[in-house]
Amino acid sequence: MALAGSEMELKLQAINNKKTAISRSWILLDRDGRDMVLDVDKYAIMRLVEIHARDLRIMDPLLSYPSTILGREKVIVLNLEHIKAIITAEEVLVRDPMDEDVVPVVEELRRRLPVKGEEESCAQDGGEENEFPFEFRALEVVLEATCSFLDARTRELETNVYPALDELTSKISSRNLDKVRKLKSAMTRLTNRVHKIREELENLLDDDDDMAELYLSRKLSISSSPSSSNSDGPNWHHSPNQGSKIHRSSRGSATTLHGEENDVEELEMLLEAYFIQIDGTLNKLTTVREYIDDTEDYINIQLDNHRNQLIQLELFLSSGTVCLSIYSLVAAIFGMNIPYTWREGHGYVFKWVVILTGMACGSFFLSIVSYARRKGLVGS
Amino acid sequence: MALAGSEMELKLQAINNKKTAISRSWILLDRDGRDMVLDVDKYAIMRLVEIHARDLRIMDPLLSYPSTILGREKVIVLNLEHIKAIITAEEVLVRDPMDEDVVPVVEELRRRLPVKGEEESCAQDGGEENEFPFEFRALEVVLEATCSFLDARTRELETNVYPALDELTSKISSRNLDKVRKLKSAMTRLTNRVHKIREELENLLDDDDDMAELYLSRKLSISSSPSSSNSDGPNWHHSPNQGSKIHRSSRGSATTLHGEENDVEELEMLLEAYFIQIDGTLNKLTTVREYIDDTEDYINIQLDNHRNQLIQLELFLSSGTVCLSIYSLVAAIFGMNIPYTWREGHGYVFKWVVILTGMACGSFFLSIVSYARRKGLVGS
Amino acid sequence: MALAGSEMELKLQAINNKKTAISRSWILLDRDGRDMVLDVDKYAIMRLVEIHARDLRIMDPLLSYPSTILGREKVIVLNLEHIKAIITAEEVLVRDPMDEDVVPVVEELRRRLPVKGEEESCAQDGGEENEFPFEFRALEVVLEATCSFLDARTRELETNVYPALDELTSKISSRNLDKVRKLKSAMTRLTNRVHKIREELENLLDDDDDMAELYLSRKLSISSSPSSSNSDGPNWHHSPNQGSKIHRSSRGSATTLHGEENDVEELEMLLEAYFIQIDGTLNKLTTVREYIDDTEDYINIQLDNHRNQLIQLELFLSSGTVCLSIYSLVAAIFGMNIPYTWREGHGYVFKWVVILTGMACGSFFLSIVSYARRKGLVGS
Amino acid sequence: MALAGSEMELKLQAINNKKTAISRSWILLDRDGRDMVLDVDKYAIMRLVEIHARDLRIMDPLLSYPSTILGREKVIVLNLEHIKAIITAEEVLVRDPMDEDVVPVVEELRRRLPVKGEEESCAQDGGEENEFPFEFRALEVVLEATCSFLDARTRELETNVYPALDELTSKISSRNLDKVRKLKSAMTRLTNRVHKIREELENLLDDDDDMAELYLSRKLSISSSPSSSNSDGPNWHHSPNQGSKIHRSSRGSATTLHGEENDVEELEMLLEAYFIQIDGTLNKLTTVREYIDDTEDYINIQLDNHRNQLIQLELFLSSGTVCLSIYSLVAAIFGMNIPYTWREGHGYVFKWVVILTGMACGSFFLSIVSYARRKGLVGS
Amino acid sequence: MALAGSEMELKLQAINNKKTAISRSWILLDRDGRDMVLDVDKYAIMRLVEIHARDLRIMDPLLSYPSTILGREKVIVLNLEHIKAIITAEEVLVRDPMDEDVVPVVEELRRRLPVKGEEESCAQDGGEENEFPFEFRALEVVLEATCSFLDARTRELETNVYPALDELTSKISSRNLDKVRKLKSAMTRLTNRVHKIREELENLLDDDDDMAELYLSRKLSISSSPSSSNSDGPNWHHSPNQGSKIHRSSRGSATTLHGEENDVEELEMLLEAYFIQIDGTLNKLTTVREYIDDTEDYINIQLDNHRNQLIQLELFLSSGTVCLSIYSLVAAIFGMNIPYTWREGHGYVFKWVVILTGMACGSFFLSIVSYARRKGLVGS
Repeated sequence: MALAGSEMELKLQAINNKKTAISRSWILLDRDGRDMVLDVDKYAIMRLVEIHARDLRIMDPLLSYPSTILGREKVIVLNLEHIKAIITAEEVLVRDPMDEDVVPVVEELRRRLPVKGEEESCAQDGGEENEFPFEFRALEVVLEATCSFLDARTRELETNVYPALDELTSKISSRNLDKVRKLKSAMTRLTNRVHKIREELENLLDDDDDMAELYLSRKLSISSSPSSSNSDGPNWHHSPNQGSKIHRSSRGSATTLHGEENDVEELEMLLEAYFIQIDGTLNKLTTVREYIDDTEDYINIQLDNHRNQLIQLELFLSSGTVCLSIYSLVAAIFGMNIPYTWREGHGYVFKWVVILTGMACGSFFLSIVSYARRKGLVGS
Repeated sequence: MALAGSEMELKLQAINNKKTAISRSWILLDRDGRDMVLDVDKYAIMRLVEIHARDLRIMDPLLSYPSTILGREKVIVLNLEHIKAIITAEEVLVRDPMDEDVVPVVEELRRRLPVKGEEESCAQDGGEENEFPFEFRALEVVLEATCSFLDARTRELETNVYPALDELTSKISSRNLDKVRKLKSAMTRLTNRVHKIREELENLLDDDDDMAELYLSRKLSISSSPSSSNSDGPNWHHSPNQGSKIHRSSRGSATTLHGEENDVEELEMLLEAYFIQIDGTLNKLTTVREYIDDTEDYINIQLDNHRNQLIQLELFLSSGTVCLSIYSLVAAIFGMNIPYTWREGHGYVFKWVVILTGMACGSFFLSIVSYARRKGLVGS
Repeated sequence: MALAGSEMELKLQAINNKKTAISRSWILLDRDGRDMVLDVDKYAIMRLVEIHARDLRIMDPLLSYPSTILGREKVIVLNLEHIKAIITAEEVLVRDPMDEDVVPVVEELRRRLPVKGEEESCAQDGGEENEFPFEFRALEVVLEATCSFLDARTRELETNVYPALDELTSKISSRNLDKVRKLKSAMTRLTNRVHKIREELENLLDDDDDMAELYLSRKLSISSSPSSSNSDGPNWHHSPNQGSKIHRSSRGSATTLHGEENDVEELEMLLEAYFIQIDGTLNKLTTVREYIDDTEDYINIQLDNHRNQLIQLELFLSSGTVCLSIYSLVAAIFGMNIPYTWREGHGYVFKWVVILTGMACGSFFLSIVSYARRKGLVGS
Repeated sequence: MALAGSEMELKLQAINNKKTAISRSWILLDRDGRDMVLDVDKYAIMRLVEIHARDLRIMDPLLSYPSTILGREKVIVLNLEHIKAIITAEEVLVRDPMDEDVVPVVEELRRRLPVKGEEESCAQDGGEENEFPFEFRALEVVLEATCSFLDARTRELETNVYPALDELTSKISSRNLDKVRKLKSAMTRLTNRVHKIREELENLLDDDDDMAELYLSRKLSISSSPSSSNSDGPNWHHSPNQGSKIHRSSRGSATTLHGEENDVEELEMLLEAYFIQIDGTLNKLTTVREYIDDTEDYINIQLDNHRNQLIQLELFLSSGTVCLSIYSLVAAIFGMNIPYTWREGHGYVFKWVVILTGMACGSFFLSIVSYARRKGLVGS
Repeated sequence: MALAGSEMELKLQAINNKKTAISRSWILLDRDGRDMVLDVDKYAIMRLVEIHARDLRIMDPLLSYPSTILGREKVIVLNLEHIKAIITAEEVLVRDPMDEDVVPVVEELRRRLPVKGEEESCAQDGGEENEFPFEFRALEVVLEATCSFLDARTRELETNVYPALDELTSKISSRNLDKVRKLKSAMTRLTNRVHKIREELENLLDDDDDMAELYLSRKLSISSSPSSSNSDGPNWHHSPNQGSKIHRSSRGSATTLHGEENDVEELEMLLEAYFIQIDGTLNKLTTVREYIDDTEDYINIQLDNHRNQLIQLELFLSSGTVCLSIYSLVAAIFGMNIPYTWREGHGYVFKWVVILTGMACGSFFLSIVSYARRKGLVGS
């Protein structure tokens, strides 16, 4: 158990190292369930999905950008933790499909993406997930994988942190301290990552236009039916937003005036569910963090208190030393070889010297202790 | 009193353990006062109330999601602390009705849900609570129970924290420290839970559309009267929002243009009252937290100051030891068995050696002490 | 001065105790200057002013809700610190009028509420306060009393805190520490209360609709002149907002389209003035808080530094002890009663032993000190 | 340099003292360059500029309100640090013109207020500052003076803080600690003041309506040309806002619909420039604050480390003392006067006792030291 | 490696010093690829680009204003870190082009600014960057340079911080502490700068009108085609916003009503990419900061724990000293030269005195140690 923290560290590093070593291959899955491994450079990808070089750079594992969900004109660019994917209305491109963390995601995509006949109209009536257009089914798989991945990491950390803290509380040693430090550091990084995804989902949920951006199929069908879009006004409401993630504030009141907007609901319900899940994960991490902080406060006070008790005991010993020194001094004085007048014939003196000095030193010791006690320096 | 903290801990854990052990049973209460225990799996529930699997998962006690109030198309999903309920326009489904914390809620629902004749039109004239539609009466019972539950937990904590802190202030011991740590940790968790509910209520109050979502009866009556909705425009203002909790920012200006919105008032007044109550609870917890923090600062300074006083006393003792050592040294020198020339016939020397050395050592002691005092190291 | 902190504590507690003991009596003041003491239960009050039980509960001193200003359909509910009042368009009801802190407020209300002839139309032309409708004059008196009360408490705290901190800085003792802790705790509570009122005023100022809610007279005159409200559309703009405090976000753009809104100005100017005043009070408290925190940091460093200096002095004494021990040891060796060969006839040895050992010990002491100095352990 | 902190303290206090002692005199400057000292009471001022008593109170130096910029119907009320001024469309009233900090502001106003011929129409074509209406030229002078004043105070503090901290780092003494504490406290107060002005400017910039409030000349010309205002609708858009600072949220969409709004630009550009300047000042203060905090952390760790090293050295000395005590004990045993059997004829024993005991004690010392080293207690 | 922190410090200072010494020269680059060094004063610049003196002051390196992006009527004013530039629709003016950090930016501008034939209409079809109007190509070069510069600084810091902290953890010395302090201080400053730029980009992205301000070419073409602007209404929607950066809140709903707004997309996508990049940089810095803080907590606990262990060892030694003192005292008593009655003929006494006293002292030592162990003062 003692090595768990550093093992985790190493594991995380290993993941990073591996990723950078893997060749820049991609896997392409389409709506009919076919998949194909592409081992091409970024220019081929850019041609394939009409994505800008700037946006492709966001998915570069070497640059380690924070998690992002970007809605572009014809694609959704996902950079969620280890999963880097490009979703179009008909295909999903996943980067580094051989990465051990990505393999299950690809499996899941393979299982859930193919539609069984009812894909022509996003029917609102029956099935549970097939009601979604292709891009949202892909998005859901990726979000689910990301949330589960982070939740698993969080649980792993939790099971390491609590015993490590208990161990540290019972015995403060360099080794335990170092283990807690490593776990804390791993937790800080994990919290940042979870927080980033939560923020990204919150921003999306906050802005109906951003969500509308992600309806790739609908945008495609609108642009492919020029008759409907040329005839009347509502069409240009949409065009401003094509191809961009409108940030935090474009609280458009204009686009809420036409009826198509009600489709944002589906996506909203989808994102909300994962928002609550990732929020719960963040909650757990926050609780762990506060537990660590409380424990550190506790250890600090504990250490201070321990020290004071040690010093109190030392005080007793010092008091004893002083009294014994006084006694010794008296003995040493009488041990001097300087002759004095009453040296002989006073055999009874020895007894009195020993007894009286002993009593004097004892009472001096007691007076020091009672002084310290009266001042509240040593416990009653 | 000393065990209160850990007892509470255990109790909270016990609650959690119990919950996970209880079978996934539900109780169904309808507007006519009938109730029925359902011991069914989640698919039966999903069929019964038209709720999505994702939303049902939020109420899973094993996953421990944070508190949530979700307005869906035909149901309100409540996950408030220990109370997990689904409210439709005509029924309330409460999970785990045998849980000892949930039993009084079910009792209260049984008492207050049945309407006494005036339920056909939500009359704004007279009665205190019967003016509300069914879903709000259910919601109020659940909110009241949740707020009271959290307030009771807070009071319980308060009565434990203050004596524990006073005890710790008067005597810093490992046992007291550990007790305060446990209480602090329990308080952090409780604060998180209270904060979460406060936030959820605030988000609802912030957004008129989210509140409109919760008017299940009204939505039902609108959708069941197609004549009114097909005739004119205002109808489609509503449709976009059906079935989803529109998050923090959909500050819709469109929906404020028609007259139905005034009904949000009732719900607003209801939620506001519980918002103020939960805000008061949070206030109390914050005050307790700040009291704990101040006490810890105090203890830290106190411990540091105590240590300095201990060390000051030790300094006196060390000074004494040094002076006594000097005296002893002189005595030891004269105690050597090496013969010296003036050994005999100088009986008066002894007296002078004892007196002069004593005076020298005493003045050395005083000079050390006065040096320390002049430097401000020991108090005047 | 030393008892000021705890005296204040006691006083605050006394206020609380007293409040709970006082009977639930009310005083009613109307616009013609008449007043009447009502010793009735809450149901009578509810009947008298058409207020909901939930809202009346907010003013219950036993439940200690935070400060609130609530605009309801026909009343303004005020729970500002010790002043709990219900304002209607024609009367003011103040709770616990015999409370020593409430008496001056009632006096002030009695003095300023009666209007002198020009009350029929809220004239915007001349007088300073009579231009306001009845409810705002009452509101102003209560706000002024609350702000002055809190400002007085703040000044009182300030005059206690600064000398207490200076005393603590010059002498760290348990008594001074405890006094500062008590003052800090009192300050935290006061800051929370001031902050709560500031927040409440800010929320009101942020939302024009909430402010419009408080125009009881105007709402009354609109509802009593059905001819004007039935004739045209603008009327139903208002109805949605009657009877509820619309929270932080209903930044209604719709209601700004008609001309009545300009009356919000008066209230805005009124609230702004008290907002600035309470903001100044909060500023003072923040400054005091930061001064306390800085002083605590200072004391911590000071204590640490003091300790190091004490230990440095002890180090000198320890060094001395070691050197004296060496000297004593040499003397003790020569004091042994074991006979050795060169015992006789070497009278000159004594001199050399004393001198050489003394020089060796002295140089050892100097080398320890210079080592410590070279390492930077003791000051130059 | 050592006294700089406290000198500054005294100076700041002196400023405050002086202000309260100065008589409540005003200076009035008009657009033709004439000025006149008014030594009148507040009622005269209220009559002169049509300002409410509540607003005049904000400028009372005795009440020390935070910095404020208030737009009223016909005046701008400025309470910026030491400068308290009332600006109307034709005159500027400055309080306490004899105050040494205010004198240069009055000089600058005298120099820049008089317009040179092109004042009849706020021409947008050429000159740099004359393009502004009268009230903005006055506002700019006051803002510039305030920003420069605070920036100068910040620079002064910076030049004091860095050497004081360096001195403290090299030598921790009570005097240096106290100096840093005083500087820190002065900095906290200064930061609060800068922050308040920054906030006030930000709030103004955030709200176009608040800025429109400050166009006194334009409001005057609109109200004096009733023909234009009575003829059409746009006029009542403005009336709601006359006479009040609409707070943070009245994000009026209505007023953006007509063309006059483009004049807000001028003021916006003016305020923006000073916002950036005061933001830079706040940045500097934040950097200084963080430097102080980092230095305190450093000093704390340094002191702790120093103490540990002192205790390590003491440990060596204690070890030495123990070993010497053992040696002394052996010597003392042989120094007892109790006769033992082998007392005579064993001259060689002395040598062995001295050598063997010495070696035993030496090895005991080394074993203690090596134990401590093995445990990592003393450095290698 | 040890000097890296202070070297970096010096380097940063050197940059600042150099900048202030360089003459105020400018380089002008136009869209045809020509460049020209201008060594003129600020009045010439003001005449050249129609910029206000206030805005030019923002770029004064002596005043060290924070990073700013300002959209004015005909220019964009950039003050991003070391790069101070003025962009018009046809030219770019860069300050201090000889500065070693600015040279590569100028090179890049020279390379990318000249357009190759398709500049007459901002074609949205093909090329990657030529699709942008002139001012955005210039802006992108500057943003890219700034982001890369800050990212490089961050990496440099990271490579210095981690080894420095590891070194500090393994050995706490004044030198290491000082190095970490310097790095921390450098990091704080860098974080502030990165944060400032991130904030500036976020504010721009939050406000569509601010972004519209930056479309210099479009504004130019609109104002140069009066026929289109006079004919219909939409034109005056734009005029209010010309020439000013409308701050955080002018969430204009009006301007979203016409079709030109879709061009903001291009800029939005551009700024978004750099926002994500600078956000990633800030993330890294935050992680480093948290790592430093965690390490400091660790060091503090470590130091405290170390001290306690030292004191525990000292306690053992003190216990030993006390016991030895007792033994010595007994020996000293018997070493006194006072004659006692049983002096002769008791040779066996010596043995017993030595053995019994030794056993008594040993058991006393053990009882002290076991007492401390029982109290939990020394580890088991």
